[in-house]
Amino acid sequence: MPSSRPIGIFDSGVGGLTVLRQLCAHAPAERMIYLGDTARLPYGTKSKETIVRYSLHNAAFLQRQEAKLLVVACNTASSLALEELQREVRVPVVGVILPGAKKAAGCSRSGKVGVIGTPATVRSGAYETAIRGCARDIEVVSVACPLFVALAEEGWLDDDITVRVARRYLEPLRAAGIDVLVLGCTHYPLLKPVLAEVMGKDVRLVDSAEEVAIEVERTLKELGLQTPSPAGQGPLPPEIYLTDRSPHFLELCERILAFPPGEVEYVDLGR
Amino acid sequence: MPSSRPIGIFDSGVGGLTVLRQLCAHAPAERMIYLGDTARLPYGTKSKETIVRYSLHNAAFLQRQEAKLLVVACNTASSLALEELQREVRVPVVGVILPGAKKAAGCSRSGKVGVIGTPATVRSGAYETAIRGCARDIEVVSVACPLFVALAEEGWLDDDITVRVARRYLEPLRAAGIDVLVLGCTHYPLLKPVLAEVMGKDVRLVDSAEEVAIEVERTLKELGLQTPSPAGQGPLPPEIYLTDRSPHFLELCERILAFPPGEVEYVDLGR
Repeated sequence: MPSSRPIGIFDSGVGGLTVLRQLCAHAPAERMIYLGDTARLPYGTKSKETIVRYSLHNAAFLQRQEAKLLVVACNTASSLALEELQREVRVPVVGVILPGAKKAAGCSRSGKVGVIGTPATVRSGAYETAIRGCARDIEVVSVACPLFVALAEEGWLDDDITVRVARRYLEPLRAAGIDVLVLGCTHYPLLKPVLAEVMGKDVRLVDSAEEVAIEVERTLKELGLQTPSPAGQGPLPPEIYLTDRSPHFLELCERILAFPPGEVEYVDLGR
Repeated sequence: MPSSRPIGIFDSGVGGLTVLRQLCAHAPAERMIYLGDTARLPYGTKSKETIVRYSLHNAAFLQRQEAKLLVVACNTASSLALEELQREVRVPVVGVILPGAKKAAGCSRSGKVGVIGTPATVRSGAYETAIRGCARDIEVVSVACPLFVALAEEGWLDDDITVRVARRYLEPLRAAGIDVLVLGCTHYPLLKPVLAEVMGKDVRLVDSAEEVAIEVERTLKELGLQTPSPAGQGPLPPEIYLTDRSPHFLELCERILAFPPGEVEYVDLGR
């Protein structure tokens, strides 16, 4: 049954806005509610137990907003808390790992796939497990790129320094002969032009944020949960909730979304 | 009265270890207890209200360990919560802002002082206020250097990329003709060689961590609170407490301290 209930998205902070941007582009008729857990970010340095607890709080909040589907737009939470979320939550839950992993496994011809992410994501081995779950023979080479988040947030997107950093981080992936590179961190789509330049045209970049949006579209369609879209209605501005006031978030929000967000509200989700 | 009670140090995470290192070097006879609030880091993106609450929790924990003096080894907490801490806590509290500010004001001859820090520290204007509180006529030029923390944590300390990033960030300070540069972030002492190279020998670097250690030494002496140091006793390994398990912290701990820490314990300080 079509549903005008919103899609709920959460991330530890600002990175998931790249997922929100893709969701707005792919499903412009849907209402979106974004929760940035700015009071408790970053998740990447915290224990699994803590991340599961935070994720369940976030999911409960979004369910109170009547979300019809949840998107975990955070690699750490997707790799450590997805199972618990899918068990506890009564609506479909889509994480950011599996859609990108499926895409990568499906389009590699060399059988060698590269994954870049934060140290925590790489340490978790989540993409490797997911890609090899789709195609057992694929060789996965993962590299942590800790500076990329700071470079993306600094806005040095078309920049000689960023190119040099990317060359250094990506060299082992080039040497390994990968033909697909998964951008395994929600910040990295902002660096796509530099990554494409450094990897060359024979390496396909898989943007997890975009694959998530495609997966959400497909899930809504399959379950008949799409919003009935009255003709002529433009896209709705996403509703944004944060768990703490963050000048940093607000500065980056417009740059990442490429449009100004609506009003931002603040909520306390406990600890 | 001499006291063998410990010095308590807290930071939001790993940065304050540069302060701990200096304290160990300047006051090797003292017991040190370091609390890294890894469950709730970073502080730089959070509201004043939240930072004051976290800081009071941290101080209460260190007082339960019978600390005779507290060091706030975190620029954000020092700039936003020091007054509240000094009001609520019954032992002396030393922050990281004032010692560096005093030193900078005292040794500038050109009357132009540069300050580098995280965006949150620069936004707070805390160093500017403190320096001009010491010497009203000094002109303070502040620059946020968001990539420096990531570069320091990456260990790219003697590195062409770091030199390029530093040149870009520091150019406005060179152009302004400063003769003193305050390292207003606890991570930055790790980058001192690069910063010295880029600024040249006519610019004096003020290392806040070192100035804090000198200030703590002086305070203990003035109040007669130094540990009676039995002859032949070597420095004690610091006791380290974290509010969440953090592989990231442990990886960086030995690199920053330049010696392995003792056992790390975990505590829950609430929210």
